Amino acid sequence: MDRIPILKMGRFLLVTIQVDMHDEMAMTLQEDLTSRIVTDRAQGVLIDISSLEIVDSFIGRMIGNIAGMARLLDAETVLVGMRPAVAITLVELGMSLAGVRTALNVDKGMLMLQNAQREKSA
Amino acid sequence: MDRIPILKMGRFLLVTIQVDMHDEMAMTLQEDLTSRIVTDRAQGVLIDISSLEIVDSFIGRMIGNIAGMARLLDAETVLVGMRPAVAITLVELGMSLAGVRTALNVDKGMLMLQNAQREKSA
Repeated sequence: MDRIPILKMGRFLLVTIQVDMHDEMAMTLQEDLTSRIVTDRAQGVLIDISSLEIVDSFIGRMIGNIAGMARLLDAETVLVGMRPAVAITLVELGMSLAGVRTALNVDKGMLMLQNAQREKSA
Repeated sequence: MDRIPILKMGRFLLVTIQVDMHDEMAMTLQEDLTSRIVTDRAQGVLIDISSLEIVDSFIGRMIGNIAGMARLLDAETVLVGMRPAVAITLVELGMSLAGVRTALNVDKGMLMLQNAQREKSA
């Protein structure tokens, strides 16, 4: 597999990261995702990392970058399914993922994005 | 990675198959999915195979089995994101996936499950 699939769910995009990513794959994901946000007129991005047992600083930085790019394209990013051990590692690495919202699971993340949309249009 | 994540989306479960599965992984997926259908009281299962460039008879049979098990647990299965080449291979292998519904993408598959639910409760 050379790229991570991006699934459209209504007005949002869902990315499930299941494999350890190397540099090239991460770059491809950033490019695919930003162009999909524009072509699908997505208003939010959900990134599920429930499969990842380890998140290193490379992946942490990539998630931060994706959230920053999505924000510039007027889409919110919610990171879902983080394991407790991953949260510990990220803080120990000094990565607080400022600007990235998190939720327990996809259901809750979706709700968060819907509420954010409602506030925006209110 | 030893298991494929199962994401809960409202009353449905979503499985995104991104990697080539070996026997053990397929067995784990069947076990995980059937128990999740019961514990989450799921009414439908979406299986996304948009990442798969090749589907062999092993994966084809597994998808058929999952749909059969889900049906016994009163949940419908919709297979989404099949590539044209995969459809050709499956028919050439003599696997028509009888009893498995298909949809172009997750959005359309979700709509199909929602309509099926509505008819059921009507």
